[in-house]
Amino acid sequence: MQRAAALVRRGCSPRTPGPWGRSQSSAAAEASAVLKGEMELELQRGIKKPFTEVIRANIGDAQAMGQQPITFLRQVMALCTYPNLLNSPSFPEDAKKRARRILQACGGNSLGSYSASQGVNCIREDVAAYITRRDGGVPADPDNIYLTTGASDGISTILKILVSGGGKSRTGVMIPIPQYPLYSAVISELDAIQVNYYLDEENCWALNVNELRRAVREAKDHCDPKVLCIINPGNPTGQVQSRKCIEDVIHFAWEEKLFLLADEVYQDNVYSPDCGFHSFKKVLYEMGPEYSSNVELASFHSTSKGYMGECGYRGGYMEVINLHPEIKGQLVKLLSVRLCPPVSGQAAMDIVVNPPVPGEESFEQFSREKESVLGNLAKKAKLTEDLFNQVPGIHCNPLQGAMYAFPRIFIPAKAVEAAQAHKMAPDMFYCMKLLEETGICVVPGSGFGQREGTYHFRMTILPPVEKLKTVLQKVKDFHIKFLEKYA
Amino acid sequence: MQRAAALVRRGCSPRTPGPWGRSQSSAAAEASAVLKGEMELELQRGIKKPFTEVIRANIGDAQAMGQQPITFLRQVMALCTYPNLLNSPSFPEDAKKRARRILQACGGNSLGSYSASQGVNCIREDVAAYITRRDGGVPADPDNIYLTTGASDGISTILKILVSGGGKSRTGVMIPIPQYPLYSAVISELDAIQVNYYLDEENCWALNVNELRRAVREAKDHCDPKVLCIINPGNPTGQVQSRKCIEDVIHFAWEEKLFLLADEVYQDNVYSPDCGFHSFKKVLYEMGPEYSSNVELASFHSTSKGYMGECGYRGGYMEVINLHPEIKGQLVKLLSVRLCPPVSGQAAMDIVVNPPVPGEESFEQFSREKESVLGNLAKKAKLTEDLFNQVPGIHCNPLQGAMYAFPRIFIPAKAVEAAQAHKMAPDMFYCMKLLEETGICVVPGSGFGQREGTYHFRMTILPPVEKLKTVLQKVKDFHIKFLEKYA
Repeated sequence: MQRAAALVRRGCSPRTPGPWGRSQSSAAAEASAVLKGEMELELQRGIKKPFTEVIRANIGDAQAMGQQPITFLRQVMALCTYPNLLNSPSFPEDAKKRARRILQACGGNSLGSYSASQGVNCIREDVAAYITRRDGGVPADPDNIYLTTGASDGISTILKILVSGGGKSRTGVMIPIPQYPLYSAVISELDAIQVNYYLDEENCWALNVNELRRAVREAKDHCDPKVLCIINPGNPTGQVQSRKCIEDVIHFAWEEKLFLLADEVYQDNVYSPDCGFHSFKKVLYEMGPEYSSNVELASFHSTSKGYMGECGYRGGYMEVINLHPEIKGQLVKLLSVRLCPPVSGQAAMDIVVNPPVPGEESFEQFSREKESVLGNLAKKAKLTEDLFNQVPGIHCNPLQGAMYAFPRIFIPAKAVEAAQAHKMAPDMFYCMKLLEETGICVVPGSGFGQREGTYHFRMTILPPVEKLKTVLQKVKDFHIKFLEKYA
Repeated sequence: MQRAAALVRRGCSPRTPGPWGRSQSSAAAEASAVLKGEMELELQRGIKKPFTEVIRANIGDAQAMGQQPITFLRQVMALCTYPNLLNSPSFPEDAKKRARRILQACGGNSLGSYSASQGVNCIREDVAAYITRRDGGVPADPDNIYLTTGASDGISTILKILVSGGGKSRTGVMIPIPQYPLYSAVISELDAIQVNYYLDEENCWALNVNELRRAVREAKDHCDPKVLCIINPGNPTGQVQSRKCIEDVIHFAWEEKLFLLADEVYQDNVYSPDCGFHSFKKVLYEMGPEYSSNVELASFHSTSKGYMGECGYRGGYMEVINLHPEIKGQLVKLLSVRLCPPVSGQAAMDIVVNPPVPGEESFEQFSREKESVLGNLAKKAKLTEDLFNQVPGIHCNPLQGAMYAFPRIFIPAKAVEAAQAHKMAPDMFYCMKLLEETGICVVPGSGFGQREGTYHFRMTILPPVEKLKTVLQKVKDFHIKFLEKYA
């Protein structure tokens, strides 16, 4: 409990200036200190809380919410970790085969050796083969694959190189609003200019190319826009981009000579039956050589999401296309300073891209586990959307993909005043109250960015179904009471 | 073979400008391209090489050179990875106890969950207990411990924060010459000023405080020196600092209000019987409250070195003392952007600081394995020093600690001319020739920095004893022939 209030901050941008001219996180820190103080005082006095546990629906941390690891992945990892187990009859042959292949590609046949900075060769080959399969035969070159320490590492590394290019004016980096706060944080760290384009909430958070045009036109007055970041499926917004929209974006990037940065870590997390995941790489190639040999693209994936949810291993990869040789040289140098990504995370990435196939011993169990995770997420996505939309003053777009709801909440004028009196963003105030009264921890929309005057929060759909139902019911009850209180 | 030449670069600074006004690595890249071209041509022609394998004595990658992992560490890691094994009778109880303790501290009892950005609580407690034991009772606070992605991550993170502090003039960061190239690379990335202080080669690479005074005095003309980096035991130089010298350095840092950054990743690698490892933290406390409550210190450790050699897991920690609360706040924010260090690396760090103790089931095997690794390293340190010093034109200081020899080599004027004709630093030319003729890969001194007109290379002592003897004999033969050729 003693760190409960700090949870609200997690997922918030550490440096996004809020509407009160200070960073949201400093506001959150203050608020959390207040709350923590209050709670400690109350606990000292023996006052009971209105809840028995804190539910961390603030971060996409599947296994922390009880999701079980995929058995096959952990078996391969255990075999790689302690190769004596290769003689054990209690491990399946297909897991042993994967482990042997990985170990043979490691220095001294050990996960304990450094790999090449770019990652273990055979794992990069497996990633390239996976991408080729995923994209219906569009070729992927292992030389273009870089293994990373989670996707965050890849994103911040490539941004660092693109921004440090020099030039007269500062580099502009276009990001969606709402965004995943890694982007704003890295842009601020690099002293680049954050160029916001707004997703269309009225239209299921779709990306509209006219809005991209507006954003880039206005940005050109004060910076040099070079990079366009896309998150698909969206975080925190959960939309899945249509193929047509991706084509439009690629055409726009080609016109404006923008480097496309496609954050596709939720590519396995698509739930709406009328949506499908289309990779930027595939669409780029299908648009013909004018695009596929000119548009610079980096795409990111991770072990942390999908159905594996292996966040702790910090595994990931990026594929880069049409990278200028000079930039590529800088990338290799930058990566070599940090030696290599964790080799255990690289091994985990290998299993994500190279799971059991039909005919292999582990296929059936693997498929069952995978379907169970994804089936449950789809069920919970629908459940969450439906329940939120039954609450007066909450509107929730369909959760087409990813693992979050980002409902819009109505906050009455009196509550906005109360928040201002506490020097808090109104939705931060709302989330703090929610935590205080229900033990449910979600992240205020102001941590992600939102149109002025609108308020949201992000909640994961990771708690198990029954617990999620309870959570949603509690949020509903809280919201109704909140509206009454500040009516 | 096709990537052999690129090996020479590994360990070289990516951005240190060389005496030829370009980065050493671009010189190395050119040279390697030439060599690679030559070798490919020769191979195409069916010409045999004068060696049968490339020996990578360029990086401190123990397990890649055949060192076996410590059994206990891997047992605990396997148990954490695949907790079904907790029921297996083939794992010892003390390993199970460690694994259970780690898992209980992880979200959802899984290595697959994110940890707190600062690291898993119980592992930080174990680190603090280790430091307290190591330092004879000087207390360590788990709140001051940050788990990191290898030591490199900690070093670059803390430098980033210290350098970004602002102020009129650019921040100066004092580093030893020769240095480990992570420092020059990060300083350059951060656009800070590298302030060189030279280690005293005539005096076993000792650090002389008068040289620190000279360096800081001269630096103040053009920057604001804020940070003093110390590598002890030294990399690439292998010296172990005396207690007296550490006291002098701390006094100097106190006088000059410098932030002390103590890279102590080789703290378990001390071989000379007349040397001992003294931590900066311990000496700081023993110097009394005037120092221990004022001097800001960060100390780094890693799973990669010592007797564990677990480089691939990218585990590490830093302990920070007297950190200004504002800086601490920035540190926490910066770390939270990257979510958390790999949890498997954190678990590996736990075993480094919390190994089996007398009375535990695994103690005997663990001690045997540990003594074997460290005993062999001590033997190889002496062997290397002795053999190098028998070669005319090579002088090698005692390898008191760490895992490298950094011998000074005499390069005849004609060879210097030949190198210039190839647009290479003379010692790069020497190392390329060595690789070409013997298959032995070492790193030129120019990658680490050295006094002008002196030449060195860094070679690890990690190959097994018999192989190391062969390597040393080959280097000797090569060197004598080289002197003759360019006499």
